[in-house]
Amino acid sequence: MAAVPTLLVLDADPLPRLGRLMGRVRVLHADEASLAARLPEADVLLVWDTTSHAVRAAWPGEGPRPRWVHTAGVGVDHLLCPELVASDTVVTTARGLFDQPVAEYVAALVLAMAKDLPRTWDLQRRGEWRPRESRRVAGTRAVVVGSGPVGRAVARTLKALGVTAAVVGRVPRTGIHGPQDLDRLLARADWVVAAAPLTERTDGMFDLRRFGVMQPSARFVNVGRGRLVVEDALVHALTRRWIAGAALDVLGTEPLPVDSPLWHVPGLIVSPHMGGDTVGRRDELGEQFVELFQRWAAGRTLRNVVDKRRGYVPGH
Amino acid sequence: MAAVPTLLVLDADPLPRLGRLMGRVRVLHADEASLAARLPEADVLLVWDTTSHAVRAAWPGEGPRPRWVHTAGVGVDHLLCPELVASDTVVTTARGLFDQPVAEYVAALVLAMAKDLPRTWDLQRRGEWRPRESRRVAGTRAVVVGSGPVGRAVARTLKALGVTAAVVGRVPRTGIHGPQDLDRLLARADWVVAAAPLTERTDGMFDLRRFGVMQPSARFVNVGRGRLVVEDALVHALTRRWIAGAALDVLGTEPLPVDSPLWHVPGLIVSPHMGGDTVGRRDELGEQFVELFQRWAAGRTLRNVVDKRRGYVPGH
Repeated sequence: MAAVPTLLVLDADPLPRLGRLMGRVRVLHADEASLAARLPEADVLLVWDTTSHAVRAAWPGEGPRPRWVHTAGVGVDHLLCPELVASDTVVTTARGLFDQPVAEYVAALVLAMAKDLPRTWDLQRRGEWRPRESRRVAGTRAVVVGSGPVGRAVARTLKALGVTAAVVGRVPRTGIHGPQDLDRLLARADWVVAAAPLTERTDGMFDLRRFGVMQPSARFVNVGRGRLVVEDALVHALTRRWIAGAALDVLGTEPLPVDSPLWHVPGLIVSPHMGGDTVGRRDELGEQFVELFQRWAAGRTLRNVVDKRRGYVPGH
Repeated sequence: MAAVPTLLVLDADPLPRLGRLMGRVRVLHADEASLAARLPEADVLLVWDTTSHAVRAAWPGEGPRPRWVHTAGVGVDHLLCPELVASDTVVTTARGLFDQPVAEYVAALVLAMAKDLPRTWDLQRRGEWRPRESRRVAGTRAVVVGSGPVGRAVARTLKALGVTAAVVGRVPRTGIHGPQDLDRLLARADWVVAAAPLTERTDGMFDLRRFGVMQPSARFVNVGRGRLVVEDALVHALTRRWIAGAALDVLGTEPLPVDSPLWHVPGLIVSPHMGGDTVGRRDELGEQFVELFQRWAAGRTLRNVVDKRRGYVPGH
C-alpha cells in the first residue's frame, strides 16, 4: 500500500463529505468518460453516482486496479463484471442506510393505492368532488420478496400498519419463507412488494405466470431493481385487470425515456427511483464511507462486504 | 311507546342492512324535502345520509318528535339545533367505526406529502424523470388536535411509523395535553392534524395566528370538520410559505364547488370527505345501528350518546 492511498470518486453529483480524510488520502474524481483511464491508479473506488453503469465497462480486468470498491447504494448488479467478480477486489455497499426510507416509501405507495390518492389528485385538478369508498390497509396481507435489510424493514413497517406481512428469501430461515412458498403466498396477497437484489435468480422473476397467480385485487410494488419485472407482462396484467394496480420506483431502463408507454398505463404509478433518497442521506452515506475507509486504512475487516458470486451482501 | 315504533331513515344513498329489524319496526324513508313532514310521526330518526344538513331546519321544535336520533357518522354539528339540544331526545353517533380508517387516511396523506407524491404524479403525466430528495417520517413530530377515538387512533398510527405524536384535547388528562399546551406544540410540529369536533370552542381555531405559529416546514391535515379552519388564512399561509403544505379532507362548504379557488392552491391537497369511507363500512354502520336499536327497544341504556351541550360524545 502506498503511504497515501488514492481514492477515485465516480460522481456526477455534489461531493460526499470527505473532509475527515484530508491528508490521509489522495482524492481523484472521474466522470463516466474518464473512469477507465483513472481506475488503474486508484487504490479505492467510491461509486458515488449510483445511477452509472460505467464501472462494468471500465473495469481494468487483469491490470492494476482498485483493491476496494464501495458503492453509495445497495445494489451491485450494475457494477459486477466477470473480471471484478473473479478478482480479489472487495466490494462493499451502503447497506443499512436505505432500509427505513425505502420502507416508508413502500408504505406511502401502499396507502396511496389503498386510499385511491392518484385518482383524488386527478379529480382535484378538474375540480370534481367525487367521494369514493377506499380500502383499509389493516387486516390485509402482504408478501415481500427479498429478505435483506430493506425487505425486512418493509415488512416491519407494513406490520406496524396492521398488515400481515410475509417475507420470502433465497434461503428459508426463522421468520423468512423460502422460494417454494412464493406462489402460494402470491395467490393470497393484497400487496406484493419486490425488494430483492437483481441476480441471475431474480432477473425477470415477476413474469406473466407470476402476475397470473395474483388476486384481481392485488397491487404490486417494485423498489428492488427494474429488471426483477418483465415490464410487458406487468402492463398486460394491468390492462387485462389481472391485478388492481402497481407502483414502480425502479425501471428496466433508467431514466425512463419520455416517450415510454409505461408513463401512461392506467393503474400504474411510476416514480423516478427516489424511494431511498431522503434529506440528510448524502451526509449519512459520506459518513458511512469515511468510517469504512478508516477500517480499511487500518487493515481491519470491512463491513457490508458483497458476496460477489451471489450478488449481494449476505447475512442478517 | 307504540307496539311497533316508527323508524324514519334520512337517506340519499343505498339502504343500510335493516333486515334484522323486520317486523319489529315500521320503516319510513325521507329525503331532505320530505323530512320535515315525516319527523313528527317518527320515534327514531336514523341519519344515514350524513352529508345532509336538513335535520336542523326540519326539527319539529316543541311538537311531536323522535325520542332518539342516530347519525351514521361521528360529527353532530350539522344536526344540533337549539330545540334539539334543549329537548330530551337522545342523540347517538357511529363513534368507533371511523377511527382506524381515518387514521390510515391521515397516514396516507402524511406519507404522500413527505414523499412528494403529488408532484410525482404530476411529473408522471408529463413523462418527466426527476428524482428528488424526500422527507423521512420516522423521527418527526406531530400534534393531533382532538382527543376522541379518531384523534387518538391518528396518534397511534403515526407513532407506529416512528413519529412522536402529541394529542391535544379540551381537558388535559393522562397522555392528553390541554389547550394551554397547543401553541407550544404547534411551534415544534412537523405535522399538525385537526381531528376535533366542530363546536363553539373549535370553530375557526386554525386561523392566521395559529398558522403563523407553525414552522415553515410544517404540514397541516384536516380530517375533523371544514370549519375548524379559516380557509382564507390557510391559503394565505400556504401562499406566503408560512407552512410547507396542507391536506383538507373536510371543507367549509361540501361539496366544494367546481369554481372554488381551493382546488388549485399550490401545496394544498383537497379530497372529498372520504377518509372514513372504506369498503365494508356501510355494513358495519348498519350493524351498529341494529345493535343500538335492540338496546333502545329493550329499554336499555344507549351507547355513544352525545353530550348535546358540548357537541360530541364525551369520555374515553
